[in-house]
Amino acid sequence: MTGKPDTPLLDTVDIPADLRRLPESALPQLAEELRAEMISAVSQTGGHLGAGLGVVELTVALHYVFDTPRDRIIWDVGHQAYPHKILTGRRNRIRTLRQGGGLSGFTRRAESEYDPFGAAHSSTSISAGLGMAVARDLAQGDNAVVCVIGDGAMSAGMAYEAMNNAGALRSRLIVILNDNDMSIAPPVGAMSAYLARLVSGRAYRTIRDVAKQLARKLPRFFHDKAKLTEEYARGFFTGGTLFEELGFYYVGPIDGHNMDHLLPVLRNLRDAPDGPILLHVVTQKGKGYAPAEAAPDKYHGVNRFDVVTGKQAKATPNAPSYTRVFAESLVKEAERDEKIVAVTAAMPSGTGLDLFGQAFPNRTFDVGIAEQHAVTFAAGLAAEGYKPFCAIYSTFLQRGYDQIVHDVAIQKLPVRFAIDRAGFVGADGPTHAGSFDTGFLAALPGMVLMAPSDEAELVHMIATSVAIDDGPSAFRYPRGEGVGVDLPARGEILPIGRGRIIRQGSKVAILSLGTRLADALKAGEELDTYGLPATVADARFAKPLDTALILDLARNHEVVVTVEEGASGGFGAQVLTFLAKAGGLDRGLKIRTITMPDAFVEQDKPETMIAATGLDARGIVATVFEALGRDVEAAAMRRA
Amino acid sequence: MTGKPDTPLLDTVDIPADLRRLPESALPQLAEELRAEMISAVSQTGGHLGAGLGVVELTVALHYVFDTPRDRIIWDVGHQAYPHKILTGRRNRIRTLRQGGGLSGFTRRAESEYDPFGAAHSSTSISAGLGMAVARDLAQGDNAVVCVIGDGAMSAGMAYEAMNNAGALRSRLIVILNDNDMSIAPPVGAMSAYLARLVSGRAYRTIRDVAKQLARKLPRFFHDKAKLTEEYARGFFTGGTLFEELGFYYVGPIDGHNMDHLLPVLRNLRDAPDGPILLHVVTQKGKGYAPAEAAPDKYHGVNRFDVVTGKQAKATPNAPSYTRVFAESLVKEAERDEKIVAVTAAMPSGTGLDLFGQAFPNRTFDVGIAEQHAVTFAAGLAAEGYKPFCAIYSTFLQRGYDQIVHDVAIQKLPVRFAIDRAGFVGADGPTHAGSFDTGFLAALPGMVLMAPSDEAELVHMIATSVAIDDGPSAFRYPRGEGVGVDLPARGEILPIGRGRIIRQGSKVAILSLGTRLADALKAGEELDTYGLPATVADARFAKPLDTALILDLARNHEVVVTVEEGASGGFGAQVLTFLAKAGGLDRGLKIRTITMPDAFVEQDKPETMIAATGLDARGIVATVFEALGRDVEAAAMRRA
Repeated sequence: MTGKPDTPLLDTVDIPADLRRLPESALPQLAEELRAEMISAVSQTGGHLGAGLGVVELTVALHYVFDTPRDRIIWDVGHQAYPHKILTGRRNRIRTLRQGGGLSGFTRRAESEYDPFGAAHSSTSISAGLGMAVARDLAQGDNAVVCVIGDGAMSAGMAYEAMNNAGALRSRLIVILNDNDMSIAPPVGAMSAYLARLVSGRAYRTIRDVAKQLARKLPRFFHDKAKLTEEYARGFFTGGTLFEELGFYYVGPIDGHNMDHLLPVLRNLRDAPDGPILLHVVTQKGKGYAPAEAAPDKYHGVNRFDVVTGKQAKATPNAPSYTRVFAESLVKEAERDEKIVAVTAAMPSGTGLDLFGQAFPNRTFDVGIAEQHAVTFAAGLAAEGYKPFCAIYSTFLQRGYDQIVHDVAIQKLPVRFAIDRAGFVGADGPTHAGSFDTGFLAALPGMVLMAPSDEAELVHMIATSVAIDDGPSAFRYPRGEGVGVDLPARGEILPIGRGRIIRQGSKVAILSLGTRLADALKAGEELDTYGLPATVADARFAKPLDTALILDLARNHEVVVTVEEGASGGFGAQVLTFLAKAGGLDRGLKIRTITMPDAFVEQDKPETMIAATGLDARGIVATVFEALGRDVEAAAMRRA
Repeated sequence: MTGKPDTPLLDTVDIPADLRRLPESALPQLAEELRAEMISAVSQTGGHLGAGLGVVELTVALHYVFDTPRDRIIWDVGHQAYPHKILTGRRNRIRTLRQGGGLSGFTRRAESEYDPFGAAHSSTSISAGLGMAVARDLAQGDNAVVCVIGDGAMSAGMAYEAMNNAGALRSRLIVILNDNDMSIAPPVGAMSAYLARLVSGRAYRTIRDVAKQLARKLPRFFHDKAKLTEEYARGFFTGGTLFEELGFYYVGPIDGHNMDHLLPVLRNLRDAPDGPILLHVVTQKGKGYAPAEAAPDKYHGVNRFDVVTGKQAKATPNAPSYTRVFAESLVKEAERDEKIVAVTAAMPSGTGLDLFGQAFPNRTFDVGIAEQHAVTFAAGLAAEGYKPFCAIYSTFLQRGYDQIVHDVAIQKLPVRFAIDRAGFVGADGPTHAGSFDTGFLAALPGMVLMAPSDEAELVHMIATSVAIDDGPSAFRYPRGEGVGVDLPARGEILPIGRGRIIRQGSKVAILSLGTRLADALKAGEELDTYGLPATVADARFAKPLDTALILDLARNHEVVVTVEEGASGGFGAQVLTFLAKAGGLDRGLKIRTITMPDAFVEQDKPETMIAATGLDARGIVATVFEALGRDVEAAAMRRA
């Protein structure tokens, strides 16, 4: 059942201009075919299913009413944009979604003129859209700018900052709030509850109701700007929505699957002359595909699946994932220490904290898509003697950087950062890579930064982090499975800032941070066969550095290579800085740092990305050859 | 007129427990004495004046009603906390404010048990307070948690994220919105307009009105949690405030200078058993000091001043500040290029963009305290072909890091970052130091990162940034005056990634990034006198590196020292990483990187901080001696 569906109408649509030649009456059928095509494609590629299915009608309606690409449609996050991709000249590549060399799973400027602003992280669309609207005004253009943002994304401060600014700037901007009561996990927070009240209190607006909303509000909204403030004040006293109080003209809620409602409303909003508008559209995640409707969280992101049964392909894992080991270990620690609490920013399942939440519902805090708040909220808990574990993906921790510096590190508060998805992440591509955390955290005074080389080490590092009570600590670990080692019954507290030698050589030393250790060991064995006996060490700590170990490696080997799955400026750079200061480079050392390259690496299988960037055993061996001036062997190794 | 004021009542109060023994009737007099003492102190030390004056009555009332330090009071930003410091055992040190070794200009955990959470950056208080409230609940405590946050700080997404979470968690938490219609600059954004409507529409609540608010709402609010959702829904349909829609119980607005209103309201709120409460208090910035009332922006942060006349001491500057050179140069560039636009996050005057705004009001965007939005808003402008200059202090740019990575760098959008206050900032201390930007930006693929060595170089770098249209660029420059060089009539476009040799030596090479160049040159002269002819080079670019220059320095000198006013992991680390890769360390190079130390450096005069951390000429020379093994001379130099 992975054959292509029958899509006679869709087959006539390559780009939105084709769509706009169809009669309105054809659109429901087109939407159905689009839905079938999307289900078929994702059943082959895997990817984000539910979000796209929920906006099929909205996608069709938007491209029908608006003059894309001249009018800008910005999909927040972008994982709901598969139907949009199918309608905008990318149908012939839709079965390459998230594959190496294929279409991105998100919107992307480089991919299409119909993607005016790329996305992947949440809640950026209103900011970007407002910038584009202001640019349009400066250029005296007249194109529309439409941002489509989910209810979950509304919990992020960034969306609020943008609305606050838009409400004051009064540029013409349409924000479509796609309310499916579901971001990835069920949403949390007061805004979510508020939206639910808006919907449940009013039910859907009928088209007649909306016509009244438009007729009642639009005229006076437009023809007398001088009276705006007064009108708003009046609007407030008679009770407006929160969005109206922020300066938006609010319309809705309307049924986002009903083309007869979407089209006239969008046309009216398109022709509105001024000011920001919020259209509240209610949709169902997974709409039109029974398994996804029934379990929207399970069908948010999917593996390949059988279209008829909905059954997803699951590779049998060889070992538990790092995420799972983290979650289970933290539960065990928390059983012994009631001060341990856990904080997630809307990723309970992705971070494994759903398990923690089952065990300790009162000690688990999902604060919404709100990394800034998550970090400082954890700092508040730490200030009162609790032991917060703040579990945030590396790439999303970038959103809390100032809070880590200002609220945690400067105050020396013992917040523990569990940094999942550190390093390459595969199909999610460059926007989700965990590249920069080692650099931006190792620069902070007082930070203890660890990286486990396998899942047993992760267990120890969690125990170590529990014990570090005089300042912040962090441990970074990758997406995916561990290496399959036995897990200790209980984590041991590691000596802070001490690495370990795994294998002793004499000529070459490989100093690895994190899970590149397996490849470092392979490289060590390979080097032996070339008569280059290799020491391999596991740094364990990126900060504080094991200075004795590093000096020892530098003094007793001709070549030292550091390896880390992170950008330059991180671990290797700190090793070099220390060695320089200690005089360890004065008399010559063939030292090289292997890092992620100075480029945003495109989506692919993780192992392909590792190999292509020289972070595997071959890359390490090649680097050693290069350091030794054995360029022919190095080149051969890199070619192999 | 810098004599101490007569303060008989205040003299009896060392800590809040003393205050709480006074009769209520004595409080207005105490407030007056407190105000006089604060004015007197700041007239001697300089510092933040207007904000503290606005909360004198509120400070007295809070410590009178609440059982501090058991009850937690968290001052957002903390620059309004001088009266609080005077009342909490620190009066004897109040005239050391912001001096080396003296009291911090912000709240600080290390300074007093009455500062439960330190601050300096805006909008963190609700997050921290919520963490503390949750901790209290977990520990089954009953202390109160009070956050005092200004209306300007409410534009930050972080505050919204915290309210969104608080409204859902329903912990007992009191947020006092200190509404003085003025953050540093006049506030911008829809929230600010909304607050103005709240106040102007209702005027102050009389105490009788507030009693009604309390009586009407509190009972049903408390005694039936099961009905909460329903009650909220009803509240919405009859029209609540935005805060009520986010799950807060809203009280106010009340007059924040009227003790007879503050005390009973605070007592009621203190005894409220559950849920988050927002008390809207209206105050006047600079209250009670005529010059500050008349010009609140001018008296936000002051130099030493004459209490009677209000006249502030002004050192005659030797040269224009970097900020001013930036602003004037950008205006000139914008006169020639209409695509240039400017973005500030609530710091028009601090960044110099007030000048740009006078020249180009339609091309200047103050987005509020909203760095996340500022960056992506600029990215939206860049996507449409505009040339945005996003002017944000180094320390605040940390708040927009993810947006720089995700919305700017990955998309290769030509947003220009003007990074003011890079390096030490003096009296504002470690929370405001611009330490980490070189590290976190140089790690980003495609970023062009510059640092001018003097103000003329800054002019060139602005011109260069205008010309870089295929990706992001940034230039970092320090607080304070330039070195007094002539400014070019027009900036030249510099060759990208090319440094320059300023002075040629042979034995030692000093490679400086940014304004440490003057000290590097001094060091070079000094080294000559020791028979160590020194080359001094100005790197200009931290990224891309001038690899030819670096190799040349490495090959032709015995010692190479890099100097930068930034944390380790930045420029020097990238130089080392490049040299390692290029084999430039293989045969030995006495290379050292001089950076800011791995510690948060306490407030002091900037020149003292520079000297103490070895970033001055003596420190450079000492480092060279150390590299050469001339330890005695090095130690002598460091002692001098």
